[in-house]
Amino acid sequence: MRKLDAEILTIGDELNRGEIVDTNSAWLAEELTRLGAHVRWRTSVTDDAGDMEEAMRRAAGRARIVVSTGGLGPTDDDRTVDVVAATLGVPTVTDPAHEAKLVARAAARAFVLTPNNLRQVRVPQGAKVLGNEKGMAPGFLVELGGSAMIFMPGVPREMKGIWSDFAVAEVAALVGTGPVTSKRIWRSFGIGESHVDHRLRGLLDGVADATLHFRIAYPETLVTVVVRRPSLVEAEAVLDALDVEVRTRLGSHAYATGDQTLAAALGARLLARGETIAVAESCTGGMLGQYLTTVPGSSAWFPGGIISYANAVKEGQLGVRSSTLATHGAVSEAVVTEMALGVRERLGSTWGVAVSGVAGPSGGTAEKPVGTVWLALAGPAGVVTHKVVWPSERELVRTFAVFSAMHLAWKSLTP
Amino acid sequence: MRKLDAEILTIGDELNRGEIVDTNSAWLAEELTRLGAHVRWRTSVTDDAGDMEEAMRRAAGRARIVVSTGGLGPTDDDRTVDVVAATLGVPTVTDPAHEAKLVARAAARAFVLTPNNLRQVRVPQGAKVLGNEKGMAPGFLVELGGSAMIFMPGVPREMKGIWSDFAVAEVAALVGTGPVTSKRIWRSFGIGESHVDHRLRGLLDGVADATLHFRIAYPETLVTVVVRRPSLVEAEAVLDALDVEVRTRLGSHAYATGDQTLAAALGARLLARGETIAVAESCTGGMLGQYLTTVPGSSAWFPGGIISYANAVKEGQLGVRSSTLATHGAVSEAVVTEMALGVRERLGSTWGVAVSGVAGPSGGTAEKPVGTVWLALAGPAGVVTHKVVWPSERELVRTFAVFSAMHLAWKSLTP
Repeated sequence: MRKLDAEILTIGDELNRGEIVDTNSAWLAEELTRLGAHVRWRTSVTDDAGDMEEAMRRAAGRARIVVSTGGLGPTDDDRTVDVVAATLGVPTVTDPAHEAKLVARAAARAFVLTPNNLRQVRVPQGAKVLGNEKGMAPGFLVELGGSAMIFMPGVPREMKGIWSDFAVAEVAALVGTGPVTSKRIWRSFGIGESHVDHRLRGLLDGVADATLHFRIAYPETLVTVVVRRPSLVEAEAVLDALDVEVRTRLGSHAYATGDQTLAAALGARLLARGETIAVAESCTGGMLGQYLTTVPGSSAWFPGGIISYANAVKEGQLGVRSSTLATHGAVSEAVVTEMALGVRERLGSTWGVAVSGVAGPSGGTAEKPVGTVWLALAGPAGVVTHKVVWPSERELVRTFAVFSAMHLAWKSLTP
Repeated sequence: MRKLDAEILTIGDELNRGEIVDTNSAWLAEELTRLGAHVRWRTSVTDDAGDMEEAMRRAAGRARIVVSTGGLGPTDDDRTVDVVAATLGVPTVTDPAHEAKLVARAAARAFVLTPNNLRQVRVPQGAKVLGNEKGMAPGFLVELGGSAMIFMPGVPREMKGIWSDFAVAEVAALVGTGPVTSKRIWRSFGIGESHVDHRLRGLLDGVADATLHFRIAYPETLVTVVVRRPSLVEAEAVLDALDVEVRTRLGSHAYATGDQTLAAALGARLLARGETIAVAESCTGGMLGQYLTTVPGSSAWFPGGIISYANAVKEGQLGVRSSTLATHGAVSEAVVTEMALGVRERLGSTWGVAVSGVAGPSGGTAEKPVGTVWLALAGPAGVVTHKVVWPSERELVRTFAVFSAMHLAWKSLTP
């Protein structure tokens, strides 16, 4: 079977000036490959109309499927709709559904539409509109010289929405049905890529048409298995059998599959037990609370917390003793213990989790270098503490600390 | 004046399957732009020899400078040297310097070289070798149809080494020592792309060799002006003159230039005034504190705050009256006012900033839809409040709320 040739075309000056890294085309390449297409070319041009038309014609000449992003915004240098229309020899028309949405949003936000706002709700006449549920500019599909060309905005969130909601079905129809590819992702924390690799060695021995991949999504390590079977049921059965094996080998490091975050996994445990958790944060400055509250409905298990960046706040709002601070320093087992106990008591939660560390770039010492983080979890049966040393850049240290705190709580709540 | 056209060509199957994101081409695009070249096209092909040759010929036909990465390794699917040689009609030859380095390394590590190892030290006959100090495969430069074509390995560390050590000088010689390109970015908040566009219309009228661009870095809108002048001093003088005009037209929406974040701009104001700010967060759950503490040294002006996600925490830790909550609801001007006053008083800070809103996806009502956020800033002279309505997804509402809070404080501290 010859796979269908595809080309990805990204449009925008800022890409060719190197101001942003083109993550869209890698994402689309993975999607197209997953669907069974063969991405032969990826092309990127500026907002120059002549170059855009040349790129579109060449892509149509060598690929059955062309997927393009960018140039669909409201400003004068967003020219994709005009160039596509000119290439096809048709006028542009306003899409009524997206126009209505734009007008409604402007009313809701009490702002006045400029003439330019309406530029972004146009499509070439005759194009099939691919609705944008997350933004204003519609995607669309046209045919040019036997090639199906899909155009979407460059904003990754909007592009991914249009892709999943509408474009995938168009591409799948072109590629046709055959064997089904199914994928499962296991998310792990606290174990490096090479150790995951080591523990999963031989996992796929005797499993045909299956591949194993590792990827870092800092600070997590993601394990992906892709299997190809005649039907979805058969593919999922293989993945279900592997699921038991992967979890056994990775132990408490593997906390979820798919898109479930560590915060959501922790929240699900708390919800099931009817318990709550409060946070006391020093070096993370609110980041732990922020992660927990990314989960919709987190108010059922998260009452809040204290950001005690300064020692005076650790004393005044959490009841940490000044003698403890003076004797052990803010980054110490004794201080995080009192922070966790303090926030649990003052907020009346089942659990209190505390973080105090040296995030850097300055403030490190020989005894407590940048990356030293103390964690404590106070609960009905007392306090457990944990120390991590993860020398790195400020934001990476903070993120690692937040995941360490969530993982400590998740493990403690898991039977 | 016509700038020298350039094209970036990346070669490799793994890029077109989306397994890795192509960061090389963004890096090279920025370098070429900095040197004064105009990157018109970026093209990416697989290891297919026919596609590679087509891409090389097209690039040579439309760009004076072509920079390529990938396909220079030791395996059979590394075909760049062979395809370049075939396109030029010359044989491949071994580069003695890199061969000697490879032989010496093999001897030091006591391994036997296979014929394949020697594949990577070849170049097309007549090519100018660009030495690889960080790896085994040399870069090289050839001329094809009036175009200078530079080939380098795809490993970013090796590519950047060859580029800096040798390729930059080649490109600079081609571009010449003439005009200099200089760029300035203004960061704005609270005004959409189309309104920024509208306000800046005609900004560059009468300014030669200058371009204006807009870009969303949610929730900010970035304005970029690129100017080209005979010297850096002249280019910067133009940008300085435009700086006054841009700030006048955008008013308090424009808060910084370059890489300075809104959190850093607010921190700089506080530091200059010797003042501090504490946070009281409801729907943002710690995100405001997290943003403020991304700034190294923020402990000088940020003591901490209270995450009062639950109403009980608003009462217990911030002193919000239960009657205020009962009368007005948690998302109200009255409650954020008491939150801001409460955190300022309890943490003893100069300023207290409070956020309470409906982040969604549930919890919205007709009167207070998802996206409704109340903000309050308490200071020495009293309290100012502000309401925003920004219907969107949960994380976007929260991010918008955090930026609104920082912007309210920044404006109030700006003379």
